[in-house]
Amino acid sequence: MTIIITAFERSPDGGKGLARDTRVRWAIEEVGRPYEVRLLSFSAMKEPAHLALHPFGQIPTYEEGDLVLFESGAIVLHIADHNAGLLPDDANARARAITWVFAALNTVEPPILDLANAKILEGNKSWSMARLPLVEDRVRVRMRLLAARLGDADWLNGAFSAGDLMMVSVLLRLRASGILDEFPNLATYVARGEARPAYQRAFAAQLAINAG
Amino acid sequence: MTIIITAFERSPDGGKGLARDTRVRWAIEEVGRPYEVRLLSFSAMKEPAHLALHPFGQIPTYEEGDLVLFESGAIVLHIADHNAGLLPDDANARARAITWVFAALNTVEPPILDLANAKILEGNKSWSMARLPLVEDRVRVRMRLLAARLGDADWLNGAFSAGDLMMVSVLLRLRASGILDEFPNLATYVARGEARPAYQRAFAAQLAINAG
Repeated sequence: MTIIITAFERSPDGGKGLARDTRVRWAIEEVGRPYEVRLLSFSAMKEPAHLALHPFGQIPTYEEGDLVLFESGAIVLHIADHNAGLLPDDANARARAITWVFAALNTVEPPILDLANAKILEGNKSWSMARLPLVEDRVRVRMRLLAARLGDADWLNGAFSAGDLMMVSVLLRLRASGILDEFPNLATYVARGEARPAYQRAFAAQLAINAG
Repeated sequence: MTIIITAFERSPDGGKGLARDTRVRWAIEEVGRPYEVRLLSFSAMKEPAHLALHPFGQIPTYEEGDLVLFESGAIVLHIADHNAGLLPDDANARARAITWVFAALNTVEPPILDLANAKILEGNKSWSMARLPLVEDRVRVRMRLLAARLGDADWLNGAFSAGDLMMVSVLLRLRASGILDEFPNLATYVARGEARPAYQRAFAAQLAINAG
């Protein structure tokens, strides 16, 4: 069955790979499936046809036959569940890898998104400069603990898994702030993820759309 | 194998059931398993013994024999995966239910947590009053779309599932702000979740610890 995902017609990041379709592309590339992409304008994302697929009017979505999914975490987990290569076979190791998917999305990404919001949505507010250090420090608290857990390991839970795919994807959103580079083992970890051929293919595919 | 979870020795909410152990207790109660609780002080949560279980020094954790998990989303999904009652049997319906777990944690909860942070962590800042309406409106954007999707259905995806358990748990955190009651079908949805016997048992168990 053909996989169809949705992505921005013009990504707000201009092709830096930070939109959430990149995570899904990466997962699909890791398991070696073909896929098609339907591009959406910002206005099309808010129209009934797309809201029927994604109730919050965002990208990506995932269609495969009758199945329609949204939420990049759920999509990556579905791909990992139904194709070899992104989750270990051992039941306990599998549950641990899934824990890291949630940790990436729920513990690490929220303060990183807050930082982006503080700069983008509130960058012109009177409080912006005074508030920014507080928001940055909330990110650093999480980074410090993540860096301590990773230590000098290559990946978070043994072999590369969906948990690493999601954590690297989330940490990439922090690089432009300079905070990622304050944690050398995390910066190396992210570079290790980016070096994977499947990531390279996913990145190139989204860049081809957005750099036109 | 006995399930052991961790919870606050003294919850910051004083027993309102908003700490994340309540979600896990609720899931365990829905599937009818016995469990034990290990209570932790705030200082014990940051010590090496607990950081070995939870790299971010939070609650809850989940232990079952050799398996140790953290992240309430991963724990609830693990419980749902290994016990009947929280996920449909049909593969597509199951994937949809899991999508709602992620939607609750990644799309709906972040702006609700931002609102809590704006009041608790930044309530004494000079910008607090001016900024609050912006943060509240970001919550309302998501609530409006969620309310539209739920419509007059009882649950988000057919029968009650782990997705509803997580969404109700997240929306409970919004009630004190008054914003939940701006969306009558969502308020009713939350009340429907709270009325479940398994939720009642989970709520009573955490209250017994925190109302002492």
